[in-house]
Amino acid sequence: MFSMIPKYFSISQAIISRIRQGDLQPGMKIPSENDIIKTYQVSNTTARKTLQEIENAGWAIKIKGKGTFVRSANVERSATRILGFTRNMIEAGYRPSTKLLLSRLSKKGHQGVINGRFYHLPGPLYRIVRLRYADDIPMMYEERFISQEFCPGITQHDLEQSLYDLYEQRYQLSLTEVKQMLSASIIDDEDMMSLFDLTGPIPAIVVEGVTFFGKELILEMEKSVYRGDKYKFSVRARQNMIPT
Amino acid sequence: MFSMIPKYFSISQAIISRIRQGDLQPGMKIPSENDIIKTYQVSNTTARKTLQEIENAGWAIKIKGKGTFVRSANVERSATRILGFTRNMIEAGYRPSTKLLLSRLSKKGHQGVINGRFYHLPGPLYRIVRLRYADDIPMMYEERFISQEFCPGITQHDLEQSLYDLYEQRYQLSLTEVKQMLSASIIDDEDMMSLFDLTGPIPAIVVEGVTFFGKELILEMEKSVYRGDKYKFSVRARQNMIPT
Repeated sequence: MFSMIPKYFSISQAIISRIRQGDLQPGMKIPSENDIIKTYQVSNTTARKTLQEIENAGWAIKIKGKGTFVRSANVERSATRILGFTRNMIEAGYRPSTKLLLSRLSKKGHQGVINGRFYHLPGPLYRIVRLRYADDIPMMYEERFISQEFCPGITQHDLEQSLYDLYEQRYQLSLTEVKQMLSASIIDDEDMMSLFDLTGPIPAIVVEGVTFFGKELILEMEKSVYRGDKYKFSVRARQNMIPT
Repeated sequence: MFSMIPKYFSISQAIISRIRQGDLQPGMKIPSENDIIKTYQVSNTTARKTLQEIENAGWAIKIKGKGTFVRSANVERSATRILGFTRNMIEAGYRPSTKLLLSRLSKKGHQGVINGRFYHLPGPLYRIVRLRYADDIPMMYEERFISQEFCPGITQHDLEQSLYDLYEQRYQLSLTEVKQMLSASIIDDEDMMSLFDLTGPIPAIVVEGVTFFGKELILEMEKSVYRGDKYKFSVRARQNMIPT
């Protein structure tokens, strides 16, 4: 049989499969042009196209004068930007989707200590629980408490879309600040493991947050569980930045 | 025998011990003045002094019109400030100390991907490994890679003090930016569990970071493990802040 698959492509797939299997870890150098030429007995054009293909597919990054390195397979989330899940995923090159697990109006308020301060969101409020996916992989379990006063009837909208979009487009609320507290945890109870489609326990990052709009008004509070095997949070501290 | 311990103090100690044992969890209401009056058959002055004592000792926080709530026993660390361990601990009300585990000059450089960008700190560099304590509890395991070019002979100084202080005071380097990537992990290998004095696995937050001084010059890179049962990271995102 005659193969229509170009050489550079099948070589790139072989190397990508080594990355997928963890044989080549993030930060490690992948085979160089010369390595590929020697190992696969191909021309340097083919070797160059192979590396280009791996880089284009997002598996590696070329550093001038240093080589091509395996990229982290994790999703990075900036913790110092007001950034919804949906936009974060799109920017990271994934297809976001959402499954609504629960939506309910509750009379009780919600409260918590975030970054050393006590916050209280008075009832009635909507409690919305969702599971959020990237390319059909469950990434984050999210529980939100949303003020009925500021978002009346929000549960009548499609809740499998971005809530940040809903706030801004339907309720004309412009978010001004998000305060969050990140802590480490382990996903090991059966319900959560089954939600995340896991066969064993994994580390997790729990985010407790409060979202403000206008002048220090609380719009919502959240408690979310991000799977630790897929997520990294990026932060940046600068001299003379406003302290948290 | 005649007890010299005032009533309010012994009642406060009883309630604090319920907090220590986890019977009263962070965010939960502690007994009110009226509860204390009824339970311990004391005056309202004594009840008030009891609550004051618990609050002064840092175990609870009084919210006007709502009651007194158990405070989080965790150390909070702001991820959006340039903040060394030592200063963070002092601000949180703990006594910091440090144990040097290793200090070595190595010819090899260090590299890593932080917040999606590849950073390379060329050798020779100092590799310094330390265990950091709050009130004699091991809190954080820290591995730092420090440029010899910018901090020649740093290992001749006392390395159980704040390195940030050393950079600024001995080397007149003023830190301008710290980029960090937070991920979740589990401390479960024997060496690390023994270092942290643990009897079972706990969640952890791994911080990989790069510290800059002057105009985008890399001073050091770090990889640290913060115990997740003691630490929370606080972050704050504001509209129009510089994105990470």
